Formats: sequence, C-alpha cells, structure tokens
Amino acid sequence: MHHQETIFTIGNGYLCTRGTFEEGYPGDRGATFIHGVFDAARNVNTEIVNEPDWLPLTVYLNGERFGINHGVVASYRRTLSVRDGLLTRTVVWQSPGGHRATFTFERFASLADPHALYLRCHIVPEFSGTLEFRASLNGHTDNLGVVHTYWVDQGERDGVVYLDNRTRETKIETAYAMRVQTTTGHQLSRAVWAVENKPCVMVRVQARPGNEIVLDKQVVVYTSRDVPAEQVVSTTLEHLNNVAAWDQAVEKNAEAWEDAWENSDAVIEGDDEAQRAVRFNLYQLHIVAPRRDDRVSIGAKALSGFGYRGHAFWDAEIFMLPFFTHTAPAIARNLLDYRYRHLEAARAKAKANGCEGAQFAWESADTGEEVTPTWIPDPADRRRLIRIWTGDIEIHISADIAYAAHHYWRMTGDDTWYIEKGVELILDTAKFWASRAEWDAENQRYEYNDVIGPDEYHDHVNNNAYTNRMAQWNLQTALDVLDWLNAEAPARANELVNELDLTPARLAQWQDVIQKVYVPIPPSGVIEQFEGYCNLKPVYMAALEPRDISTQQLFGIEGSNQRQAIKQPDVLMLLYLLREHYADDIVRVNYDFYAPRTDSTYGSSLGPGIQAIIACEVGKPDEAYKLFQLAAESDLYDLRRNASDGIHAASCGATWQAVVFGFAGLRITETGWTVANRLPSGWTRLAFKFLHRGKLQRVELTA
Amino acid sequence: MHHQETIFTIGNGYLCTRGTFEEGYPGDRGATFIHGVFDAARNVNTEIVNEPDWLPLTVYLNGERFGINHGVVASYRRTLSVRDGLLTRTVVWQSPGGHRATFTFERFASLADPHALYLRCHIVPEFSGTLEFRASLNGHTDNLGVVHTYWVDQGERDGVVYLDNRTRETKIETAYAMRVQTTTGHQLSRAVWAVENKPCVMVRVQARPGNEIVLDKQVVVYTSRDVPAEQVVSTTLEHLNNVAAWDQAVEKNAEAWEDAWENSDAVIEGDDEAQRAVRFNLYQLHIVAPRRDDRVSIGAKALSGFGYRGHAFWDAEIFMLPFFTHTAPAIARNLLDYRYRHLEAARAKAKANGCEGAQFAWESADTGEEVTPTWIPDPADRRRLIRIWTGDIEIHISADIAYAAHHYWRMTGDDTWYIEKGVELILDTAKFWASRAEWDAENQRYEYNDVIGPDEYHDHVNNNAYTNRMAQWNLQTALDVLDWLNAEAPARANELVNELDLTPARLAQWQDVIQKVYVPIPPSGVIEQFEGYCNLKPVYMAALEPRDISTQQLFGIEGSNQRQAIKQPDVLMLLYLLREHYADDIVRVNYDFYAPRTDSTYGSSLGPGIQAIIACEVGKPDEAYKLFQLAAESDLYDLRRNASDGIHAASCGATWQAVVFGFAGLRITETGWTVANRLPSGWTRLAFKFLHRGKLQRVELTA
Repeated sequence: MHHQETIFTIGNGYLCTRGTFEEGYPGDRGATFIHGVFDAARNVNTEIVNEPDWLPLTVYLNGERFGINHGVVASYRRTLSVRDGLLTRTVVWQSPGGHRATFTFERFASLADPHALYLRCHIVPEFSGTLEFRASLNGHTDNLGVVHTYWVDQGERDGVVYLDNRTRETKIETAYAMRVQTTTGHQLSRAVWAVENKPCVMVRVQARPGNEIVLDKQVVVYTSRDVPAEQVVSTTLEHLNNVAAWDQAVEKNAEAWEDAWENSDAVIEGDDEAQRAVRFNLYQLHIVAPRRDDRVSIGAKALSGFGYRGHAFWDAEIFMLPFFTHTAPAIARNLLDYRYRHLEAARAKAKANGCEGAQFAWESADTGEEVTPTWIPDPADRRRLIRIWTGDIEIHISADIAYAAHHYWRMTGDDTWYIEKGVELILDTAKFWASRAEWDAENQRYEYNDVIGPDEYHDHVNNNAYTNRMAQWNLQTALDVLDWLNAEAPARANELVNELDLTPARLAQWQDVIQKVYVPIPPSGVIEQFEGYCNLKPVYMAALEPRDISTQQLFGIEGSNQRQAIKQPDVLMLLYLLREHYADDIVRVNYDFYAPRTDSTYGSSLGPGIQAIIACEVGKPDEAYKLFQLAAESDLYDLRRNASDGIHAASCGATWQAVVFGFAGLRITETGWTVANRLPSGWTRLAFKFLHRGKLQRVELTA
Repeated sequence: MHHQETIFTIGNGYLCTRGTFEEGYPGDRGATFIHGVFDAARNVNTEIVNEPDWLPLTVYLNGERFGINHGVVASYRRTLSVRDGLLTRTVVWQSPGGHRATFTFERFASLADPHALYLRCHIVPEFSGTLEFRASLNGHTDNLGVVHTYWVDQGERDGVVYLDNRTRETKIETAYAMRVQTTTGHQLSRAVWAVENKPCVMVRVQARPGNEIVLDKQVVVYTSRDVPAEQVVSTTLEHLNNVAAWDQAVEKNAEAWEDAWENSDAVIEGDDEAQRAVRFNLYQLHIVAPRRDDRVSIGAKALSGFGYRGHAFWDAEIFMLPFFTHTAPAIARNLLDYRYRHLEAARAKAKANGCEGAQFAWESADTGEEVTPTWIPDPADRRRLIRIWTGDIEIHISADIAYAAHHYWRMTGDDTWYIEKGVELILDTAKFWASRAEWDAENQRYEYNDVIGPDEYHDHVNNNAYTNRMAQWNLQTALDVLDWLNAEAPARANELVNELDLTPARLAQWQDVIQKVYVPIPPSGVIEQFEGYCNLKPVYMAALEPRDISTQQLFGIEGSNQRQAIKQPDVLMLLYLLREHYADDIVRVNYDFYAPRTDSTYGSSLGPGIQAIIACEVGKPDEAYKLFQLAAESDLYDLRRNASDGIHAASCGATWQAVVFGFAGLRITETGWTVANRLPSGWTRLAFKFLHRGKLQRVELTA
C-alpha cells in the first residue's frame, strides 16, 4: 500500500499529497508536504512537515461505513493521469449489509491555482435509503510518529470551515479552508461537527437506485511563508470564496498542465512501456517543481514520502536540474537561487571546518545549515548507533552546485542572473576548494584527503578522482568566469573581488592548485576511483546474483570498504559531467572497467540513468536499455523495494537525461547542438524539445 | 503551567491523569498514563504511553468559547483534595462579548472503581441565551511529539460513545466509553459528532441568569492488559452501563480513600506547611500505587509526567517501597512481584555481560529488559551525543532489589511469598554478585571495578563502597536465607538448589567473596566512596552558592569526575540501609565528611530525605529539617525546576521515611520496635501507624 501511496502522489509545485485513500486505513502513510515547511522536534533532525490532511472523506450507506477492507469489492480501478495530474478511483462495493453502489473519487491539486485543492466523489447507489458523507480537515498528522504541528484556531464562516495549525519549533502557520457541497441529490441534513483540530462537515442525502450523487470538497491552503501569519486565515477564506468551481478548475488545471508538458514531453513511439515510464518520471518532477518559490529546493524523495526528511542533496543540481534548465529555466533558476540564499550558511560551514569560501551542506533544508544526521540507530540493534560521515566529508557537492550554476548559464545565456548570483557561487566555492587542498611536499602535489566520493560504499578515502577533478574544474571555471566578469560587468567584478578578498596572491594560489592537484590518468586510461581502489578485493557482480540486497548490506560497512563493489559509477559520472575534457577511448576503458563493479540494482538509484548514457556512447545499446529501465521503472515497479519512502527524484531526472543525452545523443556546445541516433530496438520514433539560450529547439529521431 | 499540571495529577493506582485544563491550551502537556501500557516508536526507547485523553470539555457562552487566556478572569481558584483525590477549579469569567458566568469543574479517578473516571461541570450564568458543551474523547495524543497509538474503532450505543485505540508496536488496545448528560437545565439540542478518533458529544442548553447548569461526563476505560483484546470494547460499554452515578461515586471514592489513609497518614501538628507537604507526597504515592496489578512497578516520575519515560529504577525499591511495606504490604508485594516476573530478563542481562545469576536492568519497563538509553543528544549541541553508562554499569540495583525483598519479609513475616518468590530473588542476585566479583591476586581481595554508585557524578569507578558492601550483604543474606529455607521449606530449598545450581562449591565461593571483598573502613572511620575519591579536587558547596544548576552542570561531566562534589551521599545511604552493622561514631564522621560535599539542592532528589534521617541521628536537627524540606517541598514548590517532567516519586517515599525513621526515630528489630523523639522545633505532635508482621502499631510523639 505504501508503494502505491508514493506513486499516486499528486501535487502542483506548491505542495504534494501522497496517494492514500480518502476514507483512511490503519497503517496508511498519508502525507501532505508543503514546500519549505520544515520543523525540528524531539530527537529528530529538521524534517519536512506532514501538514494537516485535507483528504478525509468517509461515506456511510444506510449507516454502513464504506471501506474496501470489508464488504465485497466487486470492481476496483485507480488511474493517475500524468497529463493533468488527476487521480481517479472507481470502486463497485457492496456493504456487509448488502447495500451496493459505484463510487468514483477524483482529486487534483490545481497547477493553475496552487493554493486550491479539489476532491469530488460520485456515488451511484443501487439501494434506497441514505448516504452520509463526512468530510474533514485533520490537524492530527505526524511524520512516522513524530508530531510537528499544534492546533491554533478553527471556525466556520458562511458554511466554510477553516483550520489553523502551527509548527512546533519553526512556528510556521498553515490554514486550510474547506467547502463541502452536493451538486446533485436531495439533501436531508447537514451539520458542522466543530471538533477541535478535526472539523468535519456532515451531509446526509437521500439515496435512490441509479440516481447519481456528487459531492465536492474544495480546499484552499496558505502558510505564513506565503502571507504574514496574521493574514493566513483571512487570505485562505477569501481565496476559497473566489476559487473556481469544479468544471472550470478542471479546465484551468488542464491548460496549466498542457503548458507544462508543451516543452518538456518526450514522445516515444514503439515502446509503450518506456513511454509510460518516462512520462511518469517527468510527472513526478512537474508536481514538485517550485514554479513560484525561490526559497526551496527539491528533496531526494521530492515531496512524495518521508525518506531523507525532505532534505536536498546534489541530486537536485546534477540529476534533476538539467531537465528544468533545458525545458523550464525559470524553475531551474528558482532552484539555484535556493543555494544562493544559503551562501552565508555555506560560508559558516567552511569556517567551522577551518576552511575559507563556501562549503555547501551535504543535506540541506530550510536554512542551508548541515542537516545530515550524525548518528542513526543501527537497524540490526536499535541500541547501537552508526556514524554517518557524509555531512562531514562528502564535499563534492560544492563543486556540483558550481557546475549546475555554470551549466544553467551556458544553456540559458541568462547573464543577468549569472552576474548577480551565479558567478558568486562559483567564486566562493572555488575559494573553498583552494583552502581545502592539502599540499603534499613529498609528492609535490595538492590532495583532497579523507573524503567520500559519489560512491558512498567507500568512506574516508584519499584523492577521489571525482572530487579532485571537480575541484580543479571549479577553480579553473572561477578564474575564467572572473575574466569574463571583468570584461562584461567590471563594477560587479570589483565588488566581488573586494567582498571575497580575491587578491592577486589568492588567484595565483588557485592557479597553483589547478596545476598541481592530483588527477592522474595512468597509461591504461583507467582512472582509479581513489588512491588504492585498484588494490581492494575484486568483486564480480554477476557472481553475487541473485540477490535482493545491496552489496553493502551483503558485505557490511567495513567489508564494503575493503572491496571494489561500488554504489554508483563515480568515475563515469565525472566523465559524463566533463565529457568534452576526455577522449572517447578513456570513456570506453573506464566504462568497461567500472560497469561490472557497479551495484546498479540495489546500490544508488542515481547511477543507472547516467551509466545508461555512457553505455550509449560506448556502443552497448542492450546494456544502456537495461540501465535505462532500472532508472525509469524504479518507482513504478518498486524495483528497489523502498519506493514507500518516496519517489527517487534523482532517478526521475536521470531518466530524462538518459533519453535526451543517451538515446538521442544530444550534445550542446558553444556553437550549437548535435544529436546521435541511438534509439533502443523497438523505438520507432523519439521526439522532444528543449530550450537553448531562450530559443525552442525540436529534436525528432526515427528508427 | 507544566509544573501545575504535574502537581494537580489525579489517579487511582490504575491510571493517572495530569492536571491540564478541560478546555485545553496551546502548549499544555496533558497526559493519561495507564500502568503497564508501554510502547516503542521511531527513534525513542520504550516509554509509557500517553493514552487517549478523556478530559476534553469545551464550553461556549452564546457561541463564545470559554478560556482563561482571553476575556476577563474575575476570580480563579484550584484545589486538590489529597484526602479523596478530588480536583476542583472555580472560575468567574466574562467573555469578550460580555457574557459572565461562574464555572466549577470537578474531576476524580475513582479509587473504588479504578476503571471509572468522573468529570462534572457546574455553570451559573449571569446572562440569558445558550450554553453549549462539547465533550470529547481524544485519541490524538503524543509523548512530547511522539505518537504511540492509532485509531481502531469507535461508535455509539444508546447515547454512549466509545473509542478504541491501539499502541503501535506493543499492540495494546485501550477503549474508553463516555456518557454525557446534564442533570439540570433545559436541554435545547444534543448531537454526537462522530469525528474519527475524536468523538464528541455536543449538548446545548438554555442559559438563564442564576440558574445553575450541571453537566456530567462519565468515562470508563479498559485495556487489553485487563481483558482479552476482543472484549475490551464490550467490557468498557457494559461497565459504563453499571457505573455509579456522581453522588454515589463520590461517596464510594471517599470511602476508598479513607481506607487508604487509615493506616498511612502522618499527622503533624504545629507545622501546617510540613503537614500539607507530607500529605501531598503520600497522596502522590497513593495515586500511583498498583493495588490490583503485580505486573507493574512505579517509575521515577510515577505516572505524572514524561520524565524517564515511565521507567522504574531502584527508586521503587529503596525509596518508595518502605512506605508500602509498612502501611500497605499487599501493594509492596505487587511491586516486588514485578521484579520476580522479570527474573528471566535479569538472567539474560547477566548472561549478556558474561555473568551468572540475575542482573536487573537499571531502567525497567514492561519486559524487564534494560531500557536505559545508551546515547542521548547533548543538550548543548543536538548533533552530538552523550553516552549514558548507567544501564551498563550501575549494577547496585540488583542488591537493592534483594534488600527490598528481604526487608519486606522481615517487616511483614510473609513467609509464603518469601518461600515462593523472595528467596529466589536473593539467591539469584547473589549468584550474580559472586560471578561479577574480580579477584585481585596482588592484594588478595575481590573487587567490583568499573561501576557507577548511587552518586552518578562519578562514573567508571572502582570499589564503590555502596556497591561492594551491598554485594557482600546480598551474598551473606543469600547464605542465611538458604539455611532458613532448608529448615522451613526443604522441598523448595532443594528445588532452588537444583534450578540455580547452588552446589557446595558455589556456596563456598560465595563465602570466599564475602570474606575477601574489599570493604575497608580506615582508622579515621571515613569510608571512601570509591577508590581514589579522597584524592579528587576538594569542593566546598557553600562557596558555590548562589547557584541554580547542579555541580555537574557547573563543572561538566569530566570536571565532576575530577572533583569531590557528589550527587547524593552514597556512603550515608549505605549506612542507612545497613544501619545495624555500623557504630554510631562511624555514622557521625561520615555525615560530617560527606554532607558538605553533597549537592543537595540540584543533585539527586533521592538524597535529601535519607540524609535528613542521618542528620537526625547525629543530632543536627536544623540540618535535618532543611533536608526534609528539600524532599517534602521539592515538587510542590518546584524547587528543582523540573517538576514539569513529573513528580520526584523517590522523594515522596523518602519524605515518609524522613518523618518516620528520622523525626520519630523508629527502629524495628527482630524483637520489637523503638522510637526516638526528634521532632523539629514547632512540631507539637506527630502521629502515625505502621504494620509490623501484620499487626497495626501506633506511634504518637509530642513536643
């Protein structure tokens, strides 16, 4: 059930609501997450708050409560239309007492009016008597048992019921207002049950065989992130008074979705399964994309589950962002602004670690401070703890953010943003990298020691190739960018030179690090993932099959550190990001070396999509397609058995990249773009659009 | 507010309910704890569950919600009658709209019928119009933000509303049933608002100036600890149908309380403050005493707050138990049976630590397993953790439990219980002590190293005097008890010898440990609290005043380990427990040595009551009285600033001991008992009763 709740999540970039059923079941894991509403609480780190639940709607047939866990379910069908975000369920149900009816539930979070939520229930009874609806707003929600909100106020105005709650620590206020009305059917009675923190509207109507009854539940929501706290309730009520009715709202929502898909769809012909999976992944990105908010990012599980507590990782910049940069750059800019807003927090983190410049948090929530848990209970023994090191030493994220800012600018040509914000991100992360480099006098080189690379099965490693090379890239790009800025916007360049203390001596040191940082490519061309990796115990993935756990679970944390099995192809990711810096045969030998050592099935969900692109490049179409499937179908079919925790949002973005940069072989350079037709067998046509420097480009490939 | 909620807790030995207000306020910390209902949940250890709330009652005056945080509070008075457990509040309140009324709320948990809870509200309006009552059962409760229960079912039968919830991990079912009725006043309307997990009865009555309206809310509660899970709801409903009405219930409750006080009261004349404080402390023990349940103990905070999660410590046996042993031995036996039931868990703990016999958990909940947290977040920096060692090495509790069992038997002469259960507790803990002793070949002695004594400011100490001497006592008592059992019940003796493998060789080894365990008394008579204590940095408490934090907070954990400041007088506690083994001058020199080193104000709340007794013995009446006040008034006046977490239940028991064994100097030996009149100045009379071998004894002292 929890897997289905995740994949049937609806949303509109303002909030998402997991696909639990309106009538509720014991053990269900409902959640409504609103972007940016975080809270801390007893014994848990900052996490995205499970806000009050706007779904509850229970139905009684002559007093018998509708529920598919009793009575007879004669038919059941649930459909999520990824085209317009409409979730529909049709059930033919007979109560234990023999009352039968056809139920249709529809719901959507309007993409046109992001504060408006709609739920409609049609019932066609086959009996005479009464139907009773109980529609509630439920302020009693929790994050897997942890309560983050408390009741502030509620009330009723002109038949509209509202509820006002507040988060416990961060004091963010959230108000919901609800209107409940039947549009057909003879209403027998109606009452507001003003129970505290769970106001309910009860409507009783006459049931006649064959006569459809339709009930609408319209909900509006605002938080004190949107308007001042003292206006949250009044704004919510006012908005509900002016909200579109069902038919019009459906229409407006469909238009907004049409706009969203207009430039972002990827049309695949000849492989319905792939078409459906790709659109499902893009749907998940659409519902979480912050269209109107530059203070939030997208968490590793989007807003579709409790996993990773809503925290943002490099997943946002490296895996999801390209989709937005290429199809909806305003959203990409919002996501980058989130990082820009947290430069001060990144500077504080660098300083706390004895460094200069900006070191971004590995896990980031509302303030940009590091929110990676330091210790977590050992699943095998709750009384023991496991130390999580990523927040301390998985430092590559600072280069990833710089990379994303630079890439956004290259693809969009958004000089205004770049001059105002992007350049500062690149310069200040470069400053961090220069200060974090360690001089090895014996070998006359700079090193980055005691780090974790993208492959987290190996921690406390030295000279991780991905980290070292991305640091070098960050420093070089900073120097290039400063030259550019001096030419394009000398006043801003001056300002940044002063603010960031970019003295000639400092820039000379950057140059020194660039030249002497340890980024070896041996004669074999196989880039060693980190110093000593090649001396670890060899592992051949095929020999470990069949398995349904990761190789880290198989070998244990220490055992994994001693073996070559990797969580994701660290080096291949580097080659992918800095593709133009590596010759084709380097890519080929590294693919051949690392692919058999990668735990693609139960390792990181980030890897397969990117690895699929490299597989395309090195001419391994079957492997590419298998890897693509691992990414694209990961959540739909719960391949990793943890979709209950939420969507693998990075994998959604990587799926798009696999299609566009892998199967279509799109390459964009300063002078233009090219494609390479690598359509998987069976695909008869692939068509998509993307924006390049503000201009819409169309790609169409046929078999 | 949280302090008042604690001290206005009501209860009946089956459950306790904190003294929150019926109408609820943001940030209040309401709780109803039912003995034995524990649960584990996300990131927290096993804790006593905050069960559904039976208190909610909101009142509307012509639509305006009653609440003392708005409008005008013309008068307010709250009274807890410790004589019969009736909590009363009278408020004269005027609404913002000018409607005025006098409210009286009364509530009690019946001591005569422990499943029955009563709440009555009288209102005398000074206006005409309507009064609306909303009386709920609220299943949405949490333990400081952690939810432990989920909704199972609810319904309505003949005007009675019920609610059925279940704990998340331990699957204990709790059902409440509620009847709401007005006994005077003209009822205008009535409705049941069947909102899920929060059913509410709404009653609207006509308000006329001067006409009193009385509303009764009767609640019955059962759990699946009381009856099989499938009968919880029906039993609850049936019981509510037969429950006594208010007047009769008040009367029966008063009778039950009269019985409870009959043998347990301590009458103090000439010092009303002391009288009130002592009775308050005894009240707190009465409301938590498990009269009908031998599967539970009493937690460090009784059932009055979230502190220590409802876990039982040595507080139960050494500080609270004597009150029950001497005034209500059946309750003492229940508490000891709780330990007997957990012998297997204690054996498992000993085994896990490479020992034999029974090692009791330092913190114990529903299963007897160790539930001491191993790591807790550092209050100064949530991202860091502090290791809690008490669960690993505060081993003296096993001797404390043996001591309590032996003391219970000596005082009650309950041979039946002793033969069946008590002796086994003593023998199996002795077996633990013999196996835990380490032989020091160099010094030719047995040692107990790496322990924590009662004074927890010093951890990982060697040869703690309290631990070593109590271990020796436990072993010696075991040998004595086995002799006694061989004579009195040879079959049972044989059985235990076989079951516990008490071979002659083992008993000889016990004798060896008794003779050679390191329990030195130097020529000065000052028993060193542990090896090396006297070499620590000296601390003079007076020089640290004024302070409002403990010396451990002042010096830090490591700083405290290096200093002589102690949390409680470890050595004095030993002298108190084994008083007949020490000469008077030993007691005197140790009092003089340790009293000035003890953090009596913000150290352990366990110490002052016991130290007061020793102060009485060594002729320091003023010091004794001050220490007595620290114990007796600790919660009433929130002297330690943490009564919000719950009552200091050990201090309640220590208060009784201070009165009886300190000021009255009661000593009970095999041949009889004696008193010594040490009444504090101002006390004109002290009278109390106690049971000795089943016979009621009366003590009366006058100034």
